[in-house]
Amino acid sequence: MNKAAASNIYDILDDLPLDSGQVLTGAQIAYETYGELAADRSNAVLICHALTGDQYVASNHPITGKPGWWERMVGPGKPIDTDCHHVICANVIGSCMGSTGPASEASDGAAYAMRFPVITIRDMVRGLMALLDGLKIERLHTVVGGSMGGMQALSLAANWPERAERVLVIASTARHSAQNIAFHEVGRQAIMADPAWADGDYYASGASPDNGLAVARMAAHITYLSEEGLTEKFGRRLQNRKSKSFGFDADFQVESYLRYQGSGFTQRFDANSYLYITRAMDYFDLAEEHGGKLANAFHGTSARFCLVSFDTDWLYPTAESRHIVHALNAAGAKVSFVELSAPNGHDSFLLEHEQLDRVVQGFVE
Amino acid sequence: MNKAAASNIYDILDDLPLDSGQVLTGAQIAYETYGELAADRSNAVLICHALTGDQYVASNHPITGKPGWWERMVGPGKPIDTDCHHVICANVIGSCMGSTGPASEASDGAAYAMRFPVITIRDMVRGLMALLDGLKIERLHTVVGGSMGGMQALSLAANWPERAERVLVIASTARHSAQNIAFHEVGRQAIMADPAWADGDYYASGASPDNGLAVARMAAHITYLSEEGLTEKFGRRLQNRKSKSFGFDADFQVESYLRYQGSGFTQRFDANSYLYITRAMDYFDLAEEHGGKLANAFHGTSARFCLVSFDTDWLYPTAESRHIVHALNAAGAKVSFVELSAPNGHDSFLLEHEQLDRVVQGFVE
Repeated sequence: MNKAAASNIYDILDDLPLDSGQVLTGAQIAYETYGELAADRSNAVLICHALTGDQYVASNHPITGKPGWWERMVGPGKPIDTDCHHVICANVIGSCMGSTGPASEASDGAAYAMRFPVITIRDMVRGLMALLDGLKIERLHTVVGGSMGGMQALSLAANWPERAERVLVIASTARHSAQNIAFHEVGRQAIMADPAWADGDYYASGASPDNGLAVARMAAHITYLSEEGLTEKFGRRLQNRKSKSFGFDADFQVESYLRYQGSGFTQRFDANSYLYITRAMDYFDLAEEHGGKLANAFHGTSARFCLVSFDTDWLYPTAESRHIVHALNAAGAKVSFVELSAPNGHDSFLLEHEQLDRVVQGFVE
Repeated sequence: MNKAAASNIYDILDDLPLDSGQVLTGAQIAYETYGELAADRSNAVLICHALTGDQYVASNHPITGKPGWWERMVGPGKPIDTDCHHVICANVIGSCMGSTGPASEASDGAAYAMRFPVITIRDMVRGLMALLDGLKIERLHTVVGGSMGGMQALSLAANWPERAERVLVIASTARHSAQNIAFHEVGRQAIMADPAWADGDYYASGASPDNGLAVARMAAHITYLSEEGLTEKFGRRLQNRKSKSFGFDADFQVESYLRYQGSGFTQRFDANSYLYITRAMDYFDLAEEHGGKLANAFHGTSARFCLVSFDTDWLYPTAESRHIVHALNAAGAKVSFVELSAPNGHDSFLLEHEQLDRVVQGFVE
């Protein structure tokens, strides 16, 4: 039940070793590219996607038909300019848009489901590194990512420091906080409480835990928006009615919006992938991987870093970016940092934002 | 399925008119009292409880066996001193601890379930006023409440201004914001997505939507705590294990804590009551009830008000209390206001806090 597999597929021929000690055999990576690779292979930009993102960064999504999730940022003449850069965006392992994940067939022909190994952010990057090996790209011009994409960029910089010249991390963090974990756990419990989840073995049944997944998405979606943004966008305005219904319909616009976000999400995403990817994010603590000191993760790096945060992002607040900047400073790395003002919280990295465009363009060019 | 009915029960003999236009016939109010009522009936303090609270403010909860939810605040020699005050705390209508709610029997002998009328905060206060009438208490020395209890105190002051001399509102708001509504909607959808909810008709089945209710409670619980408080209390510490399990057990203490909160809650609370009470809170907008201007709600009041907020409360932030204070100022009311510093977010009003004790004691004495 890979919900789409229209992309290029790269077969990882070697076993992929994982942080858990397990290996993933016969893994595939689905990816999209934009722009020409230069003859000296020096102009590749790897874009890492967020939790529910995918490889369709600048092309229509095959299920929803909607434009790519960063179409405004990636393309000819855009901040990440495909007239001069070769952009690669791959679906992470564990996801459901063509790369190997819990919905993929295991060697016995049935879906992995919960037999899929628990993966980490570093494991996702291992998959991306295997893809770069296959594409014979030794060194990236830039690796860039927002949110979970930023975690991958940081993990790449820390664990494969020779593979990227520039590292651009937007609205991200070097570790998941207790509150971050708490929200993800609510989502996982919502999925697992749905009887259609069936301990993850729902692929053959024709049913899927859409109700639980929708609730998980609704809870997460609140964390992507700022309180101010919600007030401005919806306030207490009613949805297509003049007065309250004194019932349990979606009286308020914000209720209607959330329900729409929840149910729309289930059309394009696999519930088990949601479990695995949120788990990987919760496990992410780059300092812990490096002896408890974040600066160690970047010791001796020659890459240039750029960190961007948004002042209304309460999921990964500016303090988290600053924490990374301090570690990079302590490691003697070249780093620039900007906190941008934006009304829309964490989601700001996906939305129209001229200053963000200028920062990205200036750093990637 | 009223989960407990050990309290005093007051039968409301008249029909209770509701904001929806419906009436509630034969409603009952379960309540507890502490301390003696003075001969001149001038020392009554009404304590209004929060969303999942109840009348057991200073006595053991009959289901959990735990001490009353404000035992540290209410009792002989305590800030709300039962040596000199007669304290009344009643379960709100719509709840499930003895007052009439969706789990109560309707006139046909079956539980109301979703036939229970949608109520408002003002309707809850109508129930409380009927109780005060029955107890022949014309004027309260003080009405006090935290969170939803504060909404009731405000509604009482606005709609029955002659019934309270002092109004103490802690960690509350005069209206539910889009974000507040959004979190409640997630909880309601979690309950309604549980097949055991059965459109609310689960009372006779022996099953109940405990999984959905637990998820609702988990999501809400995050909003009661501050990010800093969660970090301090749990951080990324693991639960009874030395390393991550690479599975979906509760590896982190914060996960284990939330699961415990969720499942514990289902032992003592009715899912339909959760739907109705969250709805009442979402509908709450005291300005809207008074021509769109909050100051109108308090026009001509002779009561003294005290507002308290906590600096880390992101559910009902200080700005919401300040908004009420400005309205009270505009209405010419006597009001004092203090923002207290506390690490634990919204829940701070329930926790040990010496300064809060002093404020309450000073205002109520």
